Amino acid sequence: MKNFIFQNPTKLVFGKGQIARLPQLIPAGKKIMVTYGGGSVRANGIYDQVCQALEGTDYIEFWGIEPNPTVETLRKAIITGKEQGVDFLLAVGGGSVLDGTKLIASGMLYDGDPWEIVRKGKADAAIPYASVMTLPATGSEMNSGAVISRTETREKFAFYTSYPAFSILDPEATYSLPPHQVACALADIFVHVMEQYLTTPGQSRIMDRWAEGLLMTVIEIAPKIRENQHDYDLMSDFMLTATLALNDFIRMGVTEDWATHMIGHELTALHGLTHGASLAIVLPGTMRVLRDQKKGKILQYGERVWGITAGTEEERVDEAIEKTEQFFRSLGLSTRLSQEGIGDDVIDEVQARFERLGAAFGEARNVDGRKAAEILRSSK
Amino acid sequence: MKNFIFQNPTKLVFGKGQIARLPQLIPAGKKIMVTYGGGSVRANGIYDQVCQALEGTDYIEFWGIEPNPTVETLRKAIITGKEQGVDFLLAVGGGSVLDGTKLIASGMLYDGDPWEIVRKGKADAAIPYASVMTLPATGSEMNSGAVISRTETREKFAFYTSYPAFSILDPEATYSLPPHQVACALADIFVHVMEQYLTTPGQSRIMDRWAEGLLMTVIEIAPKIRENQHDYDLMSDFMLTATLALNDFIRMGVTEDWATHMIGHELTALHGLTHGASLAIVLPGTMRVLRDQKKGKILQYGERVWGITAGTEEERVDEAIEKTEQFFRSLGLSTRLSQEGIGDDVIDEVQARFERLGAAFGEARNVDGRKAAEILRSSK
Repeated sequence: MKNFIFQNPTKLVFGKGQIARLPQLIPAGKKIMVTYGGGSVRANGIYDQVCQALEGTDYIEFWGIEPNPTVETLRKAIITGKEQGVDFLLAVGGGSVLDGTKLIASGMLYDGDPWEIVRKGKADAAIPYASVMTLPATGSEMNSGAVISRTETREKFAFYTSYPAFSILDPEATYSLPPHQVACALADIFVHVMEQYLTTPGQSRIMDRWAEGLLMTVIEIAPKIRENQHDYDLMSDFMLTATLALNDFIRMGVTEDWATHMIGHELTALHGLTHGASLAIVLPGTMRVLRDQKKGKILQYGERVWGITAGTEEERVDEAIEKTEQFFRSLGLSTRLSQEGIGDDVIDEVQARFERLGAAFGEARNVDGRKAAEILRSSK
Repeated sequence: MKNFIFQNPTKLVFGKGQIARLPQLIPAGKKIMVTYGGGSVRANGIYDQVCQALEGTDYIEFWGIEPNPTVETLRKAIITGKEQGVDFLLAVGGGSVLDGTKLIASGMLYDGDPWEIVRKGKADAAIPYASVMTLPATGSEMNSGAVISRTETREKFAFYTSYPAFSILDPEATYSLPPHQVACALADIFVHVMEQYLTTPGQSRIMDRWAEGLLMTVIEIAPKIRENQHDYDLMSDFMLTATLALNDFIRMGVTEDWATHMIGHELTALHGLTHGASLAIVLPGTMRVLRDQKKGKILQYGERVWGITAGTEEERVDEAIEKTEQFFRSLGLSTRLSQEGIGDDVIDEVQARFERLGAAFGEARNVDGRKAAEILRSSK
């Protein structure tokens, strides 16, 4: 096991009716900016609950943080926040609203252009912020990361800042999510776990078991959610699993991969593919291309998560990859670039971008431009 | 899933050589009291590492916090701490030293007798404290609980206070632990998980998976540790599993039991049995007596943790209980009261004490004096 330091101070406030706790959770005397996306929270009753809870506090609203939040939008929020003397942010929405809010919180204490924070990969400071999370997927509600896009240059990068002070998770908020969004969310959760799990075997027995537990849970709940999105306990598992998949709990002392995410971000930036949908195409490709390097862990994954015990090692690896792709297909997601109309031009551009960055990703730092292109070609 | 609020602010600093980080971890300008047990840290090199790291800081030492720390000893530490103007505590040792230090930290800000804090079950305030944890078992390094004994009255109760600011866990500290202590620690870890798991089925799929992952890990590492206590990765798993078994991570949104612990505490208080050893006797009894109430979860536990799939439900329940008892025996621990020379007089006294408290424990709040005696008689 590698040496590690773990600390996650976020307060998780989970369950139905918890939005009413907002007045107790936000420190007194704050000038609050509540940040929203496009308006789905008006339809599902969340907006009304938040307004009711905040009655009597000093707050303004900022609307319009888009999916794959852009620095162009967030710059406006930062200007408004600074003008109005905002010193607490409350993100109400999904991972995009919260990720955007993380850049607003960081930009509030930064003098230059906020895109510089994103390119540095790390904010030096941020004002306190919290969330009412309505779309379980990114884990953003209990981690310090955020992914921001820049429309002008079609770029998309992650950066790190402070943790949310608290996050309220009410599973009832998920009842009205569009099924395709739920499918993308399940793919996102699944791949978050795989990025922290499908690396070198034998690093930590307990981290392996917990990652496998999350994967088995996603596999178990996915078809049930498709049948009934109004089962409270089921949607609770969905919501909590999303948080636990990316809140540092399963990365203690182990190496991580994240090549699939880096390639997926490019597909979103260049072609507009939804984040979770991009991962469903890339992950099976990553497994195919890195099958030798990852063989030990793929075999363990196949056996423990899918019950694959028969056949030669190579056959079991094949089956584990096939099961993974099948799972994404069962969500109704594409697993091939051609299904999404993505051609060689995009593959070439991803390769060129990786090469311009001079970067190589993955636990072995060997997923460079050439390898990324190979992964994408294997998913054509 | 039940509504819940989760927040665990402790910083975990894990791995070899991490004790050297102490000067960066303790806030500057503090008057530190370092608390120790009986002296095993002098033999294994931990004491020297701590002294070296603290060189140049303002600290005093308090020695002699015993296993099952007593309020009689801790009162002295509180008096010394108050006299010397101590405002930071560093516990160096196992769960007993840390539990005792939690009462010192709380007693430093309390005017009355510290036993009153224990009997109230909760401290209103505490000075900051941290730990260098050398014996993985209690999880005390990342939770807010502590168990304190009172020699005068042979009582033993738990109370809650603030969380440790940080805990340093160096797996090499475990190399020199006496094998019987390791065995008791493994039993303690196993039962911590069971107290949070073996209740009502169907509350949370992911909490179930994580609890099962911890149980499978303990079962897998136990025989390997008996073979080689100097395998770094193995002892890392041992150490991290202990922390994760009782740091609030696997209790999100689920009911808990803790009847086994309450009964076990009485066996320790009345007969001096080591904590982990007491649990190895009580847990199988609890499972036998509450087999109908816990049937659904025992079946799930049997199948997922022990691979028990053949036979009728009753046969599978029998086998799961037998496997549990066998596991404790494989650790070299007693699983019957008679093996420890504990007779009916102790059983009667446990029943009388439960009845005097007017308390009933377990997830169904039905383990009263009569039921506790029944559990103990089934383990005679």
